[in-house]
Amino acid sequence: MVKIIDVFHSYSGDNCKLRKGDLKELINTQMSTFVEQIQDTETLDAIFTDIDENHDQEIEFGEYAALVAMVTSACHSSFHKE
Amino acid sequence: MVKIIDVFHSYSGDNCKLRKGDLKELINTQMSTFVEQIQDTETLDAIFTDIDENHDQEIEFGEYAALVAMVTSACHSSFHKE
Repeated sequence: MVKIIDVFHSYSGDNCKLRKGDLKELINTQMSTFVEQIQDTETLDAIFTDIDENHDQEIEFGEYAALVAMVTSACHSSFHKE
Repeated sequence: MVKIIDVFHSYSGDNCKLRKGDLKELINTQMSTFVEQIQDTETLDAIFTDIDENHDQEIEFGEYAALVAMVTSACHSSFHKE
């Protein structure tokens, strides 16, 4: 769990939130084993809008934790399909 | 993320679900740094009922992942209060 927090902090700004570029870098670097690289702006915008539950154009830790839970659940399901 | 999955699998049964006793052992062993030990049945019942979103008396991976996200978020908040 500490690793999940540390990863967030290494990409979030001083205000402890992720902007769109931060989220892209985090996903493309830290989650590349689990999800495809985000290449285009439309994909990034769609993912960002989906995760940014309060629509403040930034990703708080809780929103990020929900993303981690979702990706981990998808990863777990794919383990069982193999 | 793989660690989150591995921990779940080391406590879940063959049906890949956690029963109440499994959940207690997982929380008391793997989350002891973040949450108090579950001592009494009432506390365990309350936590279990809270997490068991579909009320099937077992904890699927998705329900467990939501617990991990919740505990991690609480842990993150406490980091910022220090």
